[in-house]
Amino acid sequence: MTRPIILTGDRTTGPLHIGHYAGSLRNRLRFQDDHEQFLLLADMQALTDNAHDPAKVRRNVMEVALDYLAVGIDPDRTTICLQSHLPALAELSMLYLNFVTVARLERNPTIKDEIRARGFGRDIPAGFLCYPAAQAADITAFKATVVPVGEDQAPLIEQTNEIVRRINSVAGRDLLPEAQAIIPRSGRLPGVNGKAKMSKSGGNAIPLSATPDEISAAVRAMFTDPDHLKVEDPGKVEGNVVFTYLDTFDEDAAAVEDMKARYQHGGLGDSRIKRRLDDVLQALIAPIRQHREELSREPDHVLDVIRRGTEKARDRTEATKREVLEGIGLFVI
Amino acid sequence: MTRPIILTGDRTTGPLHIGHYAGSLRNRLRFQDDHEQFLLLADMQALTDNAHDPAKVRRNVMEVALDYLAVGIDPDRTTICLQSHLPALAELSMLYLNFVTVARLERNPTIKDEIRARGFGRDIPAGFLCYPAAQAADITAFKATVVPVGEDQAPLIEQTNEIVRRINSVAGRDLLPEAQAIIPRSGRLPGVNGKAKMSKSGGNAIPLSATPDEISAAVRAMFTDPDHLKVEDPGKVEGNVVFTYLDTFDEDAAAVEDMKARYQHGGLGDSRIKRRLDDVLQALIAPIRQHREELSREPDHVLDVIRRGTEKARDRTEATKREVLEGIGLFVI
Repeated sequence: MTRPIILTGDRTTGPLHIGHYAGSLRNRLRFQDDHEQFLLLADMQALTDNAHDPAKVRRNVMEVALDYLAVGIDPDRTTICLQSHLPALAELSMLYLNFVTVARLERNPTIKDEIRARGFGRDIPAGFLCYPAAQAADITAFKATVVPVGEDQAPLIEQTNEIVRRINSVAGRDLLPEAQAIIPRSGRLPGVNGKAKMSKSGGNAIPLSATPDEISAAVRAMFTDPDHLKVEDPGKVEGNVVFTYLDTFDEDAAAVEDMKARYQHGGLGDSRIKRRLDDVLQALIAPIRQHREELSREPDHVLDVIRRGTEKARDRTEATKREVLEGIGLFVI
Repeated sequence: MTRPIILTGDRTTGPLHIGHYAGSLRNRLRFQDDHEQFLLLADMQALTDNAHDPAKVRRNVMEVALDYLAVGIDPDRTTICLQSHLPALAELSMLYLNFVTVARLERNPTIKDEIRARGFGRDIPAGFLCYPAAQAADITAFKATVVPVGEDQAPLIEQTNEIVRRINSVAGRDLLPEAQAIIPRSGRLPGVNGKAKMSKSGGNAIPLSATPDEISAAVRAMFTDPDHLKVEDPGKVEGNVVFTYLDTFDEDAAAVEDMKARYQHGGLGDSRIKRRLDDVLQALIAPIRQHREELSREPDHVLDVIRRGTEKARDRTEATKREVLEGIGLFVI
């Protein structure tokens, strides 16, 4: 039986952190058993809001690839590939831009939010406005039917499917499959300070390469309940980052529930719950960090994984491109 | 000495007509002597406002290529290539979209005019808004420094050069050359009815494949001076399409000036000037039509010309793409 094709990946703008682990990486470890998984190192998409700093985008191709391998992505079961080296993605992007209006792109809620978040104002790079069409190209080039996305990105998959329907309508047959968004149950992990989503630029993240001391320092600084001044006082669990992380990473759910009850009742201090989280995170990250260190001493091996994956992805995406050009009736030589 | 590189071409939306001959084709015949000339069959650009009808775009790839060869474009001196089969053009387009803002594209006077002319309203295909970036990709991929354009398209070359300067600034060196717009002295030829630019869709054009009868019919129907009712009356030369065409196509300029004087004075009838123009156009088109008929019986030869040209253009554009990706500092495997 053919396994469903899944496309996922990351913009190469920084090393991955435990937020990525919780939100996507650990799901991808499971997907490689029963899906044909493609992992895109999205350096071209990274440029849509980093055109001023291509060096950052370049540097992080290797960092993200290291993160993938370090957490256990198996290049024999998951194809890791580099977006900028897959011409068919750009070709399909340019084609799809003819099948979507500027007004439709501007109405896309994800794009609207992200334009606001980035403070672009009137100076939106055209590539940024157009990236939903590029994402449609990525998804369809692999004929992916399953696409894991954050909750706020579901409109992008709807946009992809609109383009798919228009292409299929011009072709007069089901040339491309529609894709389904998979939204992970666990929402986005808050940053260490509890205020925003976890992000490296906010100094708010625990990277997968964090040292034991960095992990401990982050846990010590972590936001809990500012009104929980004495151990014997009742404390709040909602918005308490330590408990959010314990919910996410501690495999002993019963123990976490027990601590929550004691914390809310009064009598459980922050230092105790932080010690528990520190143990959990140290245990989570230690093998990843170690594997990452080993891999980073063999850059040629990592490069070879990217090369082989990109080669395989190129065959796949070139085939789709040709099918689409022929299917909608363009001149093919 | 290296010859300057010139890029030009046509959207494949219809066979070419004598307006194209006057405005561009005959210049291209001269350029092949002292320039390295690339002629782009712009099927992808044709899609930016013909996405609903790819069959038309496909059909006219062959028609335009036939027109090129029929007028005397020599594939050994001019490289005829097919845009949709040059991935580097799409890849550079997608890259350049990050170096231009949506607001800048919307301010482009050519785009503004064309959006109005096409009646897009709010429903502008994103590909249409973005085509200046695609054109910048076309020009720079060939490192063309000379680009013949209509007067109304000069802003597109300015846009290209803005992108070139931004890319060069990120690269920290002159990676790409700026291009110079060459605007042909003869303006755009009016249509047969004198009202608009010559265009096939307006039934207003004389195609390069026109039969003798079609040419004569078009000349008979041609707009002259509506107030010139009797032969002995003085007639107007300005706005008189017959004289505009004689100015453009009759090689005996002195004879045309003489006719103009007699027409303005009174005593020269429309039938006389039309007979002259008919002779001139029949003589112009007869060898082109004949050559075109011969070529159209050898489609494999024409296809081979396109294939070989596209292959050569692919080498060229792939080299530039790699240089640009490396030059701005992206990850290259």
